[in-house]
Amino acid sequence: MAVKPETMLKLHPVLGVRLASVACGIKKSGADDLVVMELTAGSSTAAVFTQNAFCAAPVTLAKQFLAEQAPSYWLINSGNANAGTGQAGLADARQSCQWLAEATGVATEQVLPFSTGVIGESLPMNCFQIGIPQALAALGEDHWSEAAGGIVTTDTCAKGFSKQIEIGGQILTITGITKGSGMIHPNMATMLAYLATDAKVSQADLQMALQVAVKPSFNSITVDGDTSTNDACMLVATGKSGLELNQHSEHWPAFQDLINEACKALALAIVRDAEGATKFITLQIESGRDEDECRQVAFTIAHSPLVKTAFFASDPNWGRILAAVGRSGLPELEVETISIYLDQVCIVREGNPAKEYREAAGQAVMDQKEITVRVELGRGEAQATVWSSDLSYDYVRINAEYRS
Amino acid sequence: MAVKPETMLKLHPVLGVRLASVACGIKKSGADDLVVMELTAGSSTAAVFTQNAFCAAPVTLAKQFLAEQAPSYWLINSGNANAGTGQAGLADARQSCQWLAEATGVATEQVLPFSTGVIGESLPMNCFQIGIPQALAALGEDHWSEAAGGIVTTDTCAKGFSKQIEIGGQILTITGITKGSGMIHPNMATMLAYLATDAKVSQADLQMALQVAVKPSFNSITVDGDTSTNDACMLVATGKSGLELNQHSEHWPAFQDLINEACKALALAIVRDAEGATKFITLQIESGRDEDECRQVAFTIAHSPLVKTAFFASDPNWGRILAAVGRSGLPELEVETISIYLDQVCIVREGNPAKEYREAAGQAVMDQKEITVRVELGRGEAQATVWSSDLSYDYVRINAEYRS
Repeated sequence: MAVKPETMLKLHPVLGVRLASVACGIKKSGADDLVVMELTAGSSTAAVFTQNAFCAAPVTLAKQFLAEQAPSYWLINSGNANAGTGQAGLADARQSCQWLAEATGVATEQVLPFSTGVIGESLPMNCFQIGIPQALAALGEDHWSEAAGGIVTTDTCAKGFSKQIEIGGQILTITGITKGSGMIHPNMATMLAYLATDAKVSQADLQMALQVAVKPSFNSITVDGDTSTNDACMLVATGKSGLELNQHSEHWPAFQDLINEACKALALAIVRDAEGATKFITLQIESGRDEDECRQVAFTIAHSPLVKTAFFASDPNWGRILAAVGRSGLPELEVETISIYLDQVCIVREGNPAKEYREAAGQAVMDQKEITVRVELGRGEAQATVWSSDLSYDYVRINAEYRS
Repeated sequence: MAVKPETMLKLHPVLGVRLASVACGIKKSGADDLVVMELTAGSSTAAVFTQNAFCAAPVTLAKQFLAEQAPSYWLINSGNANAGTGQAGLADARQSCQWLAEATGVATEQVLPFSTGVIGESLPMNCFQIGIPQALAALGEDHWSEAAGGIVTTDTCAKGFSKQIEIGGQILTITGITKGSGMIHPNMATMLAYLATDAKVSQADLQMALQVAVKPSFNSITVDGDTSTNDACMLVATGKSGLELNQHSEHWPAFQDLINEACKALALAIVRDAEGATKFITLQIESGRDEDECRQVAFTIAHSPLVKTAFFASDPNWGRILAAVGRSGLPELEVETISIYLDQVCIVREGNPAKEYREAAGQAVMDQKEITVRVELGRGEAQATVWSSDLSYDYVRINAEYRS
């Protein structure tokens, strides 16, 4: 893994959130596989879920519970996705929530379930029976790093982000953890993210802030174009800092920026840890008619197996990039307005190979671990950025062996 | 290559077509890389070209020439795609046609150029200068097999189809060759196909017959979802058998069936030779609202790297198939109406894991080299079939090393 995220930052506790991570036997490896997060009373919760038409059981239940009550607990297991499990899967997810609810004296609907891992196998319920009391006994404010490790599956490292800023003389904290390294695609893909801040924000404003933050972060990364049935991105505001914010506050932009920064940092950590990735690719599409068409071009390039294998081979095969732009489905696309750059090296200028281009210059860019592909569509003012990775032998190995 | 096409059939000559295949130095390997096909005067020609917005220079020129005159020659080179080469590429393609035209006394517009191979490099024009006279000197009716070898790039074998049938007491011949093993996707992808029949058919009727044949054949196969800038499928009717057909003839259905059969045989040969393929996958989507949505589901499954690596690993990970159906973008899709089969083994019945399903039964299907995935959408009467392959280490190797 050549483009691994940097070592995780110190993850600041967030007042009003206690966590625990335990191993209860869902993962054959014996690693941590159950995380409980306890949210103080009066917290607001925002959520974004997978766009896959077939939500996994926990997603279906979490959506339903969220509509009824503010959650007090998030119950997250890794190693088994409880997806494609039909009615029995729904019953299992509800049962796990009920056990936690009974042990803590809250309503079942106040416990939101999340699962990630193998699709199509039943949840091993005895593991939950053992794990839930263990986790409850271990709750603490300073367990963010352990929780980051407890939610991973094929990830090669735990991923977290934490920052404190001063707003109006008060310290505001945000801390988040995420998991995901394959099946990553816009609109949330086998990706779980849990963020917490100690600001006091209404549920409606918090939801707006999260949705704004998700598009240019989690929904702008892709590894293999597969969208999972289980994705969720959760943000809780505990209010414990005493700092109250709403979308009309003077300090709201600073708060939104902080949420944006946290989401982007976590999303990029996922791409850096992409399954088998040896390259970190930034796709910057400029001068399009609108943002959507820029994103469409970016994702078409990012999903092309031919482009991805060329990156793996450090091969400046820009013809594959040009071909991907051409098949991206944009109306009235003219090759004569297209220019393509590898970092600062122009390889195609207005539809023609750049006269000054020399293969050695392209090769020097491709030999790097981090590469920006910039495409000028030459037909508007909009732009979009998407992050992705290459396609390596290891991607095949990891995904071919995942269940064995 | 475990799912290679069977040994090529004997390719019958088609009266009115002479061919030659020579090595002129475009391929570094020294293999054949230039094919000339001569079409007798009075032939009708039908054509289908790539849907990529950025046609390669030869495609642009071939379309333009076809609109002006009936072609007398097809000039095909492998090893260099003359794509992404701008105005200079157009001039090179025209020059190559002109050389052939001058040597044979036809108009430049009567020579259609075709190229396949590396994108973004200039055509080595000196090779054409040497190769064209050599090929013209070698023209013969019985060189179909050599031509099949001369048009390949990363293909591991030459691909052809030939059949003779009796219609109204007369023998009708069809013979075709094709190339392609990667960058294969609906709407024609790095795929070239050249078919010839000795029937006498008007250009308009022949074009209709080819378009009917292409959808359930070349446009129903996919290897990696990349659509090339260079694809072309050509069909010539020389009229030399004396058998005259039009779309209102009694024998037209038999003729259409023959074209369909030839296109399907050639298309499936491409999938069987897919880059690095170890499995041949048939995706049969049934009970959809219309054919288009069935194709959409089929291609979403076929393009999923997670599904493709599971096939490579012979892993009955049907959850990945279900997740792909779920993200295929169909409106109002309900998991409760979906059933999924691996060959005859039901794995998901109406949204729930099939009660009688045992992993051993799924494993037995996955261990085969040829597997049918059947999905019942349970919401209509339409169906569609698409053919694809798995994603192996070798796919990555072949595409990572292609230019080196």
